[in-house]
Amino acid sequence: MESLIEIAQKARQASYKLEGCRVKNEALLAMADALVKRQDEILSANDSDLKNAENNSMKKSMLDRLRLTPERIAAMADGVRKVAELPDPIGEVKRMWKRPNGLRIGEKRVPLGVIAIIYESRPNVTADAAALCLKTSNSVILRGGSEAINSNVAIMRVMREAAYAAGVPEGSLNILEDTSRQTATELMRLGGYVDVLIPRGGKGLIKSVVENATVPVIETAAGNCHVYVEKSADRKMAEDIVINAKVSRPSVCNACETLLIDSGYPYAAELLDALYQNGVEIRGCDRTRKLRPYVLEASEEDWYTEYNDYIISVKIVDSIDDAISHINNYNTKHSEAIVTNDYEKSQHFLDDVDAAAVYVNASTRFTDGFEFGFGAEIGISTQKIHARGPMGLEALTSTKYIIYGDGQIR
Amino acid sequence: MESLIEIAQKARQASYKLEGCRVKNEALLAMADALVKRQDEILSANDSDLKNAENNSMKKSMLDRLRLTPERIAAMADGVRKVAELPDPIGEVKRMWKRPNGLRIGEKRVPLGVIAIIYESRPNVTADAAALCLKTSNSVILRGGSEAINSNVAIMRVMREAAYAAGVPEGSLNILEDTSRQTATELMRLGGYVDVLIPRGGKGLIKSVVENATVPVIETAAGNCHVYVEKSADRKMAEDIVINAKVSRPSVCNACETLLIDSGYPYAAELLDALYQNGVEIRGCDRTRKLRPYVLEASEEDWYTEYNDYIISVKIVDSIDDAISHINNYNTKHSEAIVTNDYEKSQHFLDDVDAAAVYVNASTRFTDGFEFGFGAEIGISTQKIHARGPMGLEALTSTKYIIYGDGQIR
Repeated sequence: MESLIEIAQKARQASYKLEGCRVKNEALLAMADALVKRQDEILSANDSDLKNAENNSMKKSMLDRLRLTPERIAAMADGVRKVAELPDPIGEVKRMWKRPNGLRIGEKRVPLGVIAIIYESRPNVTADAAALCLKTSNSVILRGGSEAINSNVAIMRVMREAAYAAGVPEGSLNILEDTSRQTATELMRLGGYVDVLIPRGGKGLIKSVVENATVPVIETAAGNCHVYVEKSADRKMAEDIVINAKVSRPSVCNACETLLIDSGYPYAAELLDALYQNGVEIRGCDRTRKLRPYVLEASEEDWYTEYNDYIISVKIVDSIDDAISHINNYNTKHSEAIVTNDYEKSQHFLDDVDAAAVYVNASTRFTDGFEFGFGAEIGISTQKIHARGPMGLEALTSTKYIIYGDGQIR
Repeated sequence: MESLIEIAQKARQASYKLEGCRVKNEALLAMADALVKRQDEILSANDSDLKNAENNSMKKSMLDRLRLTPERIAAMADGVRKVAELPDPIGEVKRMWKRPNGLRIGEKRVPLGVIAIIYESRPNVTADAAALCLKTSNSVILRGGSEAINSNVAIMRVMREAAYAAGVPEGSLNILEDTSRQTATELMRLGGYVDVLIPRGGKGLIKSVVENATVPVIETAAGNCHVYVEKSADRKMAEDIVINAKVSRPSVCNACETLLIDSGYPYAAELLDALYQNGVEIRGCDRTRKLRPYVLEASEEDWYTEYNDYIISVKIVDSIDDAISHINNYNTKHSEAIVTNDYEKSQHFLDDVDAAAVYVNASTRFTDGFEFGFGAEIGISTQKIHARGPMGLEALTSTKYIIYGDGQIR
């Protein structure tokens, strides 16, 4: 087995050749075909993972996430084909200008170089991440969770062999077979080899990366999202948006976790009923509890909590400023929405709420690379540098100034 | 004295009001005036720093960097006035598009929030950093070196009082009076309060920040820059560029540290002579040493070294690929130049050299925010995420998606 440093060195060398690689899309199509053609190999590796997981008494819902089927492999391959169809961002000169001394300075979109991704989710992330990094001419070093290691390694082997056969520089597509915590920490500290590290997973993983990484990180974190129903809100629109934001898929990061209702909104109790009838547990402030007997008591902790479940916290607020200051205090800077028909308040909310995506009269559930029209999604950044919100292909690129002179000195 | 956490909390609160602040330019002009009007206060604080420095036997060149004069304060004030004149990047909607479901999604330029800057240079950085952060609606927490602490605190006091009197939110402009290493480390780990940390200083500082920081960092690092004289290079142009890149100001990060000469270039010895006559110590590879007796022997270490002095390492290479692979192996991804009259080679160099700024037929010394026409410079980023190369005002901004709906749900 190659050491991490050997893998990283080869990935770095390959990254220099990748920018000029002209067979990326052909390779992606070949990789997709290979996934389908060699599915037995992948399914048999997945079987080992499933057996280990059963022996370790993994929860049923987790087992289902881990399980691959011919249909799921076909969907994975389709995802890779879709990446091939996307426009290539690399090489675009975003702008070019001339200085008084005659220098022409261009800002060119280039790959980041070597991207490391640490993830703990479904095996399809392996295919997805490999495809997106290749599309953007980056070398990639993946480190998935131990529970899916056999599936991940098989998927990468199949894709890599197809890619290299199609002319992609060898060494550019990698997965760590060693899933020890020590190797993960080593990967986080590979300055000079890794240009950016993207963690995809739960709070524990993100925290470990933030604490330990010395290479630049793009944080993709939790979503404690709010919907604020302002008093002028249309009753049906407010109900539709709140129910959609909470109930359509409670486990995802763009789901609503806290509902703020203006004290002047006339249909607060009916809004609570709608949530309750949809099977949502409601934890409210004192004023909310007076509206309906089924409202449980919210603790201070609740305002910070991303339930990822059929639970919502509800607070009655007296003004938009109270709503905004609650949001800025408790949110995770992900997605926030106001439902209103008041022009001035809509602008105020858009201006003053600190989050990656701020909505007027729409569900927070739209914070997603595909819904935004990016054609891909690497994750949703909740930090402010480099990329904020849903990350498409551009988030996997950097820029380089290219300067044309004719002998200028300073 | 306020604790760091109190300062940070107030800075965070102030940052929410800063985005809508409409008196930024008036405040900047008032800050500039105050620097001049209250210069005696600043000069007397500077006197204390100078006395302490003399007692600590500071080097004369360092003493000169530390010393303030009425002229230097006037220049500092002029710098602040120039920042007032720059266009305000905040609030610009970079692009806005409509989705098939009718959602209108805009990408708006917003402040980062709270910026921390750790620096160890001249007191003028205090004025400069405060002005640039205010211009971009960011709160700032500065942490300067202990040797200039009295000057830095006086400059900040004068500027802050003028800014707050002009209506800038209180708590937005801060400098740490405590210059202990412990407090610096605390600042590097203030997740949730500090949105980005920018270190400006020598290798030791950068290394400490990269090792210790848990908040996002923009690395502004060393410049091990190369000039490659390709065989078709014009003799005079090559000499002008090499001399300018090495000799015009050897102490700066965009100065040339290694010269690569193509083995087919006919005037290699004469180029060495020009450097030698300009007082430059030359450390060369074996082939370089055969050209002139005054060439000293370069060690492997030399290829990695940023001399910041009248010293250059020189290597004869047999091809542009050798030159590029030497550069990508030893450089710090800062600035690299080729002198050539060969079209294909100029393109090859621009494409394959991995650096923030890649030049054809111009001196590396142009890598600078002002020379690029940005009107300001925060520093030169040598990392690939968020900002690369000279950073102007835009590097101090983030983006936020603002989404206009009419009841969309998913």
